Amino acid sequence: MNGAESLVHTLLKGGVDVCFSNPGTSEMHFVAALDRIPGMKCVLGLQENVVTGMADGYFRMAEKPACTLLHCGPGLANGLANLHNARRARSGIVNIVGDQATYHRPYDAPLTADTEGWARGVSAWVRTSAHATEVGADAAVATQAARTSPGQIATMILPSDTCWDPGGVVAEPLPVPATPQADPHAIRNAARVLREQRNVLVLLGGPALREGAQKLAHRIEAATGCRLLAEGSNARVQRGRGRLPLERVPYPVDQAVAALASVEHIILVNAKAPIGFFGYPGKPSKHYPENAGVHVLTRYEQDAEVALRALVEELGAPDAAIADPGPRPEPARGAPTPEGLARTIAALMPEGCVIADESVSFGRGFYKETFAAPQHDWLHITGGAIGCGFPLATGAAMGAPGRRVIGLQADGSGMYTLQALWTQAREKLPVTTIILSNRKYAILLGEYQGVGANPGRTAMDMLDLGNPDIGWVQLANGMGVEAAQATTLEQVGDLLAQSCARPGPFLIEMVI
Amino acid sequence: MNGAESLVHTLLKGGVDVCFSNPGTSEMHFVAALDRIPGMKCVLGLQENVVTGMADGYFRMAEKPACTLLHCGPGLANGLANLHNARRARSGIVNIVGDQATYHRPYDAPLTADTEGWARGVSAWVRTSAHATEVGADAAVATQAARTSPGQIATMILPSDTCWDPGGVVAEPLPVPATPQADPHAIRNAARVLREQRNVLVLLGGPALREGAQKLAHRIEAATGCRLLAEGSNARVQRGRGRLPLERVPYPVDQAVAALASVEHIILVNAKAPIGFFGYPGKPSKHYPENAGVHVLTRYEQDAEVALRALVEELGAPDAAIADPGPRPEPARGAPTPEGLARTIAALMPEGCVIADESVSFGRGFYKETFAAPQHDWLHITGGAIGCGFPLATGAAMGAPGRRVIGLQADGSGMYTLQALWTQAREKLPVTTIILSNRKYAILLGEYQGVGANPGRTAMDMLDLGNPDIGWVQLANGMGVEAAQATTLEQVGDLLAQSCARPGPFLIEMVI
Repeated sequence: MNGAESLVHTLLKGGVDVCFSNPGTSEMHFVAALDRIPGMKCVLGLQENVVTGMADGYFRMAEKPACTLLHCGPGLANGLANLHNARRARSGIVNIVGDQATYHRPYDAPLTADTEGWARGVSAWVRTSAHATEVGADAAVATQAARTSPGQIATMILPSDTCWDPGGVVAEPLPVPATPQADPHAIRNAARVLREQRNVLVLLGGPALREGAQKLAHRIEAATGCRLLAEGSNARVQRGRGRLPLERVPYPVDQAVAALASVEHIILVNAKAPIGFFGYPGKPSKHYPENAGVHVLTRYEQDAEVALRALVEELGAPDAAIADPGPRPEPARGAPTPEGLARTIAALMPEGCVIADESVSFGRGFYKETFAAPQHDWLHITGGAIGCGFPLATGAAMGAPGRRVIGLQADGSGMYTLQALWTQAREKLPVTTIILSNRKYAILLGEYQGVGANPGRTAMDMLDLGNPDIGWVQLANGMGVEAAQATTLEQVGDLLAQSCARPGPFLIEMVI
Repeated sequence: MNGAESLVHTLLKGGVDVCFSNPGTSEMHFVAALDRIPGMKCVLGLQENVVTGMADGYFRMAEKPACTLLHCGPGLANGLANLHNARRARSGIVNIVGDQATYHRPYDAPLTADTEGWARGVSAWVRTSAHATEVGADAAVATQAARTSPGQIATMILPSDTCWDPGGVVAEPLPVPATPQADPHAIRNAARVLREQRNVLVLLGGPALREGAQKLAHRIEAATGCRLLAEGSNARVQRGRGRLPLERVPYPVDQAVAALASVEHIILVNAKAPIGFFGYPGKPSKHYPENAGVHVLTRYEQDAEVALRALVEELGAPDAAIADPGPRPEPARGAPTPEGLARTIAALMPEGCVIADESVSFGRGFYKETFAAPQHDWLHITGGAIGCGFPLATGAAMGAPGRRVIGLQADGSGMYTLQALWTQAREKLPVTTIILSNRKYAILLGEYQGVGANPGRTAMDMLDLGNPDIGWVQLANGMGVEAAQATTLEQVGDLLAQSCARPGPFLIEMVI
């Protein structure tokens, strides 16, 4: 057995059975092993940021890691931005990078690069296998690391001779460490704050945004009068009827500061105290009052639901039903607006769908209009590296079979990783993408005006996407995805409903 | 004056007047400064690997650095692969990366990443400016570093407050170090080897592939009977009538070893002794005989033409005319073949055109058929990181105004950075791209068979691009570029000739 074969067997034993890949010459022995050993579903992405973004989306829905297969340092580099987003989402990924043979690396061949150095910034664990005999054991540790709460990126770098040399040894799965529990002191402290203090905000992030944790948080809210908010960007929020109508911390500094102005204490549940996405002249980095008390109930890796249940018991908080959000919205009509689009989606989305949201500036108003929608999961871009949406939607569809995925995709961000459409077509995935085609970097035009000026010719050369207009229907068709343009919300609604009734992907270019 | 304004003024004083950009929020003050201060041509790329690849192509033709404008660590990460190629091409680039404000970085906001760490693997020089007062001076050093022979990547990381804070100071350009000259001992040693030894190979790379150096190398060849070869991948080769009919070191190991089997001595002129792109089981890393003598005439940073002239004088090599390469080829007919396409291009290319070659496996036979073409420049992918071709062609067109660029673009590689087509349309650049549409990763199918097996279903899932077929005409049209499909070489020839007679970009999908 060669090293590559030991790798495939070890991954499969560890429950890693999906591989998002874009292989190269140095990975051919791994590809050959995947071909010989049944059990791994291989999904090709036509650029590595598609590959890594799919692995992120897969983990968020499947709740287990996939592996990737990338080609040398530059292939890893192409996928770093979505690995960055995955790291911020705390997604588990066994990130496999083929590389130069151990003895060939000193020759500094053209593709030789700082593979380990580039991997470190996104990985909780990095190892370059030294010999074929160690590849199986390394893969078992990588799988363990990727599965360790809350989910981590484990990067395995495989010199090609460690794949083709004989002596591979299949390794048994290593035990995944139990999810750590909150400190009992943290639970008592949170209970004390909730009982004794006023204007307490309980800020929910990560797994605290799943249905079970939400229901417990709601009992605490009902019993103590505290306020609940979600973080600004979240890996996965369970939403719709029966779940909490949670608002998020706003993105713009002034809105965030205003929303948090009255807060005297913050209790963090798998969350971070709110800070700005960027610094701005004369504006604060922290968005909560300087003298607010900050209390940690659970850190990212700790079990939110168990801690919230303990807190409910400590407080003696009785059962509390989540209020009915009112009637399901009707589809909106007329010219596209954020609120209208959100109502249309709420009106037409199938039960149990997944929303992959890279709507950027246009989508800030989507949340409120979708509280009365059927149950669904909502995935955000978590690390701010644009180009997440298409791959995230594609990977989510792989990780949640049978569920429709609706991608809300800003046009400028969509152009980063449009190649994912081809994978949607190849795998016949049930993804409907709505392109929010405003033909500009709208968020940047807002930011530019914040600098205190109207953009001139040179600035518009860098902020405008309208010269030439991007033809999204042609781009989608060129990658094998059916598509149509819509200029009214009625058209969007009709196309959305039709696409949800059919298998496979569809793209709607909504011209704003 | 704020830091950003001092940056723009300093860059312009240093002769850096083209900016390839994809800005974000943290760069808005730089964008505002570019808007206020005339003189910088700003070219938007819709993904950062397009931006950095354009800067590479620009340097190769303009022979002076452009600057880039990238957004935070993930924006840099997206552009690393083509910075890697640019590093291997030894292209000079002032690589500017905006980042979190100095005081905001400790909060670890979502986009915060290891910007410096990622930059190091591709940069000869990296500095994070600490204060607005230092930005001008840092920009002057970065420009000096980028212009230092043979051309280097200098990465300036600009925390956003160093751009918006007052106190900017414009810096005068720093003197660019003179190109170092070869050691006189190296010239005498090379002369001795050429006089006394047999089977001497003079291997030319970098600036040794410009016309002046070629003519001197030819005199040495004529006087001593040595053999001349170009390296396998080269930043820029001057070719066509009046230039040398130079062959390259072949890419496949067996062909390279066979081509070099008789070599007893190698004299390196801005080149590296031939090694494999990858290691392979049972095949050598070095492609030249183990006991061959290796002699350095010039290192990468040294002046090839001056050294070759000194060597000519040391040898007393008389003038020698480069032989006429015979008649210009006629356009080929029938089904596409590599040789036929090369003859068609040789027959129809305009005088002084630029070939941007990311033809990968299909293009290995192009060289021989184009010796009798009009004079032209040929640019290769130098670092093996695919996704170079489209941006390289685009940047070359910016750096060589008035010259037609012909892109020879493999389809799999082209999908990496197809967004560059949009920039070609926006800037109305005279680029004709010929897509070599074989609908597979052909190089990998060859490599896979080298592993000793025919690919099965899983392997084909990762090596085949034909399910669904990529519609290049639709993709190009979607980005504002006119396009047509060709299935015969006559059609390719007609479309190529038409496109060269018109302004602006055109794409030909040549179905193989």
